[in-house]
Amino acid sequence: MTNKVKISIDLMGGENSPKKSLQGIDLFIKRNRNYDDYFFYLFGDKNIVDSELKKLKYLKNNYELIDTKIVVSDELPALSAIKKGKDSSMWKTIESQINLDSNVSLSAGNTGVLLVMSKMILKTLDGVDKPALAGLWPNKKNMNVVLDLGANIECGEKNLVDFSEMGSALYQSLYPQEKPKVALLNIGSEEIKGTDLLKNTYSKLKMLDSFGDFEFSGYIEGNQITEGKSNVIVTDGFTGNIALKTAEGTANFLTENLKKALTSSFISKFSTIFSYFALKEFKTKLDPRKYNGAIFLGLNGPVVKSHGSTDELGFSYSIEVCYKIAKGDMMKKIKYNLNHIKKLNDEKREH
Amino acid sequence: MTNKVKISIDLMGGENSPKKSLQGIDLFIKRNRNYDDYFFYLFGDKNIVDSELKKLKYLKNNYELIDTKIVVSDELPALSAIKKGKDSSMWKTIESQINLDSNVSLSAGNTGVLLVMSKMILKTLDGVDKPALAGLWPNKKNMNVVLDLGANIECGEKNLVDFSEMGSALYQSLYPQEKPKVALLNIGSEEIKGTDLLKNTYSKLKMLDSFGDFEFSGYIEGNQITEGKSNVIVTDGFTGNIALKTAEGTANFLTENLKKALTSSFISKFSTIFSYFALKEFKTKLDPRKYNGAIFLGLNGPVVKSHGSTDELGFSYSIEVCYKIAKGDMMKKIKYNLNHIKKLNDEKREH
Repeated sequence: MTNKVKISIDLMGGENSPKKSLQGIDLFIKRNRNYDDYFFYLFGDKNIVDSELKKLKYLKNNYELIDTKIVVSDELPALSAIKKGKDSSMWKTIESQINLDSNVSLSAGNTGVLLVMSKMILKTLDGVDKPALAGLWPNKKNMNVVLDLGANIECGEKNLVDFSEMGSALYQSLYPQEKPKVALLNIGSEEIKGTDLLKNTYSKLKMLDSFGDFEFSGYIEGNQITEGKSNVIVTDGFTGNIALKTAEGTANFLTENLKKALTSSFISKFSTIFSYFALKEFKTKLDPRKYNGAIFLGLNGPVVKSHGSTDELGFSYSIEVCYKIAKGDMMKKIKYNLNHIKKLNDEKREH
Repeated sequence: MTNKVKISIDLMGGENSPKKSLQGIDLFIKRNRNYDDYFFYLFGDKNIVDSELKKLKYLKNNYELIDTKIVVSDELPALSAIKKGKDSSMWKTIESQINLDSNVSLSAGNTGVLLVMSKMILKTLDGVDKPALAGLWPNKKNMNVVLDLGANIECGEKNLVDFSEMGSALYQSLYPQEKPKVALLNIGSEEIKGTDLLKNTYSKLKMLDSFGDFEFSGYIEGNQITEGKSNVIVTDGFTGNIALKTAEGTANFLTENLKKALTSSFISKFSTIFSYFALKEFKTKLDPRKYNGAIFLGLNGPVVKSHGSTDELGFSYSIEVCYKIAKGDMMKKIKYNLNHIKKLNDEKREH
C-alpha cells in the first residue's frame, strides 16, 4: 500500500455527482487495469454513494469511503461556502493530503471555493507568491500546459518565472520522455515586442534555461499555441483566461456551423451517414473531455479541478491527470525547479 | 462626381500586387454595379499597372491612376521605410485625403508602416490620445467590430472609452439599421470581476449609454464574442491581439484536423464527394476573406488595412468596408460620439 499512488476524490462536486464521479473512477480503472498501483480515498455521503457503488464493474477494492454528509453548494457565495465547508467532502478531500497519506486531491466542485480551501489547507509553497491554475490545451503533437488561466489577473515578473518552472514540472509529470519547452504568450515573436514585464521575464527565462528544467523558446503569438513547438505556455491569468475562453468559443462556433451545414439539405443529410466515421475520428481526437482537469500549482500539494459539467469520461481523464502527477512526483520536481530561481537570484546578488 | 464616394487605393501593397488589388477592384464593381456612386484614386507604377488594367472586365471608368514609382518595402525596418516613403504609393494613397478629395484610404502593405504614415499625414483626432486598430469578427448574426487589435499594448480608461465610441461609429456605418451594443472583454461577466481599469471603464460606459450612441451590455468573456449579443467588443491592444490570433489558430487547427479526418480512409474519401456541397456552404459562410479589413480609428480620416496575404476576393471585401465607411459618413459619427465623452466630463466637472 505504501508504494501505491493515493488519490483523494470529492465524489459530490459538479453535475450528476456522485454517479458521474463514481462511473468516472470505473472508467479510469477499466483503462488502467494493469497498473493496480493506485488507491482511492473517496469522500461523499455514504447513504447516496453506496447504491451507486454497487453498480460499478471495476471498483471493488483498493479504496476507502469516508462518509461526509456536507456538500459545498454551488449556489452559496464562496465565503459562506467556505465557512460552512470544514466538514464538506471538498474540504476533507484536500485535507487528506495532511491527515491521511494522500498524494493528490480531485474535485469537480466550485472553482473559487476549491482554490480558497486549497490555499487555506495546503498553504502556498515556500518562495511562491501566487499559485496558478494550469490547464491542458491540445496541439498538433499531444498537448500543452497553459498557465495562468485566471487565478491571478495581475502578475509580475516573479510570478511568470515561477509559472514557467512549475508548468515545466507539471509537463514533465505528464510526458516524462519529453523536455518541456516554455514560451511566453505575446503579440509578436520578435525579442523587442511586448510590455516591459514580458521583456524582463524573457531575459530571466533565458538565464534559467541553462539549469535544464526546460528549454526556453521565446515568445509565441496566439495562433502558435496549437503548433506544438512549445508545450508550456506562460501568461498572466487575465490574458490566459481570455485566450482559453476565446479558443473554446471559436471551437463551438465552428462545430455548430459545421453541424448546421451537414444537416441543412437532403444531399448533405445523406452524406452525413458517410461522413459519420470520419467525423467520429475528428471528434474523438479533439474531444474536450480528454483535456479535462485544471491543476492548481504552487501549494504544498497538488489539487486538480474537473469541469463541473463534464461527464464520467471527462472525469476519468482528470483522474488520469491526478495519477500522472502523483506517479511522476510532480511536487518534488516543482521544488527542484523553484530552487533554480533562488540559485540564479543568489548568483546575481554575489556579482 | 462630388456626391460620389472617393476611395484611394494603394495598388502596390501586399502579395501578388498590383494584380490582386486590381482584380479585387473588379470583383467589388461586379458585386456593386448598380450603385455607381463611387470613384477610385489608384496609386501605383503605371508601367506595371497598365497591362493588368487592360485585363479587367468592369473597371473601365470612374477612376484616376496616379503614377507612383516607389513601393514601401516589406523588408525594410519601419523607420527606414517611412523615411524613403514620401513618394511611395502608400504615402500618396493616404495623402490623397488631404490634397485630393478622397474619403478613405486602403492598402495591403506593411501594417506598422501604414499606421505610422497615417498618423504623420492625417494626425490624431482632437481629444483622442491613441488611435486604435479595429477588426471584423464573425458572430452568429453577422459580425462584430473588435478593438484594439494591437496598436496599443497598454491602454487606460480614457482609451477604452474612446474605443467604445469610435467602434460604435464604425459599426453603425457597416450596419446602419442596427444599434451598436458595446461590451468590455473580461474574465467574468459579473460587475465585480476584473481589474480596476475595467471597473472604472464599466461605470463610465454605463453613464455614456444614455447619449444613445450605443447600448452598453457590460462585460463578456472570450467564449461570448461569437454569440452576437454584443457587436462592439472593446479591449486593450495586447488582449485583443492575443484573442484574435488565438481564434485564428483554433480555427486553423480545427479545419486542418477536419480535412485530415475527411480524407484519411476510403469510406471518408467517398463521403467527401457528398459532403462537398455542405462543406462548401460552411466555408463560404465563415470565409475569413469576408472579414478582411482592419480599420484605423482615431485619425482625421479613415484608413483601411487589407491582409497582405489575402487574394482578390479578400481585397474586394476590404474595398466594401471602405465604401461603407465613406458612404455611412463614419468620420462625422465618430466626432459626434466623441463629443458625448466631452459632454459627460464637463457635466461631472460642474457638479
